[in-house]
Amino acid sequence: MMYDIEVKVSLKPGMLNPEATTIQRSLALLGYEVKGTKTKEIITFVLEADSEDDAREKVDDMCQKLLCNPIIHNYTINIIKMDLSCGCGCE
Amino acid sequence: MMYDIEVKVSLKPGMLNPEATTIQRSLALLGYEVKGTKTKEIITFVLEADSEDDAREKVDDMCQKLLCNPIIHNYTINIIKMDLSCGCGCE
Repeated sequence: MMYDIEVKVSLKPGMLNPEATTIQRSLALLGYEVKGTKTKEIITFVLEADSEDDAREKVDDMCQKLLCNPIIHNYTINIIKMDLSCGCGCE
Repeated sequence: MMYDIEVKVSLKPGMLNPEATTIQRSLALLGYEVKGTKTKEIITFVLEADSEDDAREKVDDMCQKLLCNPIIHNYTINIIKMDLSCGCGCE
């Protein structure tokens, strides 16, 4: 089975986010007063796995080992089963 | 009115994404074969505006001037009206 994976990585509450601070300050210089600016990163890819549970386990491993720093990041995983049928009902 | 704004910034199709390439190669080195890796950035903030249309116009301006490079990036804007009522029906 092929699965569309989306991993959303954000900083844990309380962590400093200099990128967001800079964006907010720059927007203020342009005349736009905004509050509570935050940034997140999304990583998407296609993964082959036996089941959704198997896919989630693999992606969780990837997050712990490479995609996130579990000390400073929170992450959420979205898994969508790809529809590869041709629409004629043959599958 | 206060609005929760979410801007999603991604590279236009055909643009090279070295970050995604590196992630995919590193995952392969760890034994995870994935395909079609892409990265996006989300910027969220709170904005005061007269109406949803006014908010959208302002955020579109911000995207054109600061948040995105319109030559290489696509962006989508999500606007959610913040519910600041206390729930008692006084508003």
